[in-house]
Amino acid sequence: MSELVEVTDPDDPRLADYRDLRDVALRRHLEAEHGLFLAEGEKVVRRAVEAGYPPRSFLMAPRWLDGLADVLATTDAPCYVVSEAMAEEVTGFHVHRGALASLERRPLPSVDDVLAGARSVLVLEDVVDHTNVGAVLRSGAALGMDAALLAPRCADPLYRRAVKVAMGAVFSLPWTRLPDWDDALPALSRAGFTTVALTLADDAVPLADAVAGRDKVALVLGSEGHGLSERWQRAADVRAVIPMARGPEVGVDSLNVAAAAAVACYVTSAR
Amino acid sequence: MSELVEVTDPDDPRLADYRDLRDVALRRHLEAEHGLFLAEGEKVVRRAVEAGYPPRSFLMAPRWLDGLADVLATTDAPCYVVSEAMAEEVTGFHVHRGALASLERRPLPSVDDVLAGARSVLVLEDVVDHTNVGAVLRSGAALGMDAALLAPRCADPLYRRAVKVAMGAVFSLPWTRLPDWDDALPALSRAGFTTVALTLADDAVPLADAVAGRDKVALVLGSEGHGLSERWQRAADVRAVIPMARGPEVGVDSLNVAAAAAVACYVTSAR
Repeated sequence: MSELVEVTDPDDPRLADYRDLRDVALRRHLEAEHGLFLAEGEKVVRRAVEAGYPPRSFLMAPRWLDGLADVLATTDAPCYVVSEAMAEEVTGFHVHRGALASLERRPLPSVDDVLAGARSVLVLEDVVDHTNVGAVLRSGAALGMDAALLAPRCADPLYRRAVKVAMGAVFSLPWTRLPDWDDALPALSRAGFTTVALTLADDAVPLADAVAGRDKVALVLGSEGHGLSERWQRAADVRAVIPMARGPEVGVDSLNVAAAAAVACYVTSAR
Repeated sequence: MSELVEVTDPDDPRLADYRDLRDVALRRHLEAEHGLFLAEGEKVVRRAVEAGYPPRSFLMAPRWLDGLADVLATTDAPCYVVSEAMAEEVTGFHVHRGALASLERRPLPSVDDVLAGARSVLVLEDVVDHTNVGAVLRSGAALGMDAALLAPRCADPLYRRAVKVAMGAVFSLPWTRLPDWDDALPALSRAGFTTVALTLADDAVPLADAVAGRDKVALVLGSEGHGLSERWQRAADVRAVIPMARGPEVGVDSLNVAAAAAVACYVTSAR
């Protein structure tokens, strides 16, 4: 049973996990050094705890206590109860969904563990925006992908903004970091996956054709700005494209990475 | 040929179109009263001008002049040249893609004009977030929708943030406002469209089945939070769903509206 602790001093050291949430650089250090991450909003806090991440503490205004009472009943982590104004002062932004939780990260699983039993896998090369990583993982989980692998430079899926946009999909979809960028795609091929790179390259075939009849598929997506690296495009077994309706002459020549990922996951799952 | 005008006083009244770009409420009034909208970034500025929107003026730091020289050559609207620090002071944010343009809005076309010749139409009920409106229109344009109709409460597609996220699709995809919320879907049915409402309702059929073999389709999407209104769900000819891979028990029971729109446009275009 979580102990409710009223806190009235914004400098109270027990609130350290929740400081300056908009300062990305500072948060990266703090979260890495303490092995923590933040969940925001009643639904996402609930999903994080239910997924088994051990809470360090909660922070919320009184009106959120009722909705999370059953979650608070499952843990001994303290719940710091503060005014909404103080929540804003500590975190540096308006916490409009009220509840926050600080939870312990867990060691990432191995690639082999993540791939075990998976038939459709999402592979992200350098998706550096937290919102995009969250959106892509949410779509992947909803649209039937079994797991996700993230290249070393991808944004952190457990960063608050990614967790929020993913609506908790980062807790339900098995994922891990690829230890090695160079050999990532060949290793997947050796593991029996057809690696399908989404690209606008000249030899790209329509995605639906690329995945038709394939058993295990690894769908490979690149960064927001420049798409996949040349190396990964060449290393993939197949290059594929989502057919666009019109040419670049009318000014729309591609989808953003989150939209492309949603369509690609749908097509891959429907194979 | 645009005249280059160096401006060094951030209070110069000629910069009025560019003030306080982050203040949504203030910008709404200013843009409505003066019939203007803003385009941001070299590519989007270019597309706005090429689409025929008359520029009122441009605002940019010197390093963006070369890239837009051909665009500036086509107009007599002045180009205010300012330092990057001053651009930030006037607009209230860091203009990281440099160039801005203020352009004249044009009268919206009639629904009949927008529908003329269209086979696949996107209909948005209450998508109130500018980023989502921009993302949905970008996906619609890229994935073969011929036009878009926006209910009265949808966010403004010509608001700067929507224009930016749409990457100019708001200039190439024909769109207009629905004058009437009540009769919108019946009117589309009378015009020969099968109205297909995307919903999680119990009687929803898989979207691919709902659109298969249909001639003219109007794909109807609801708001970010609550989806389509009951009225529109009932008024639609068909209720359809994008099949989700897993049940709500794992915590991902729906897509965000931009991802859902991308998948739905893909499926509708592929019918």
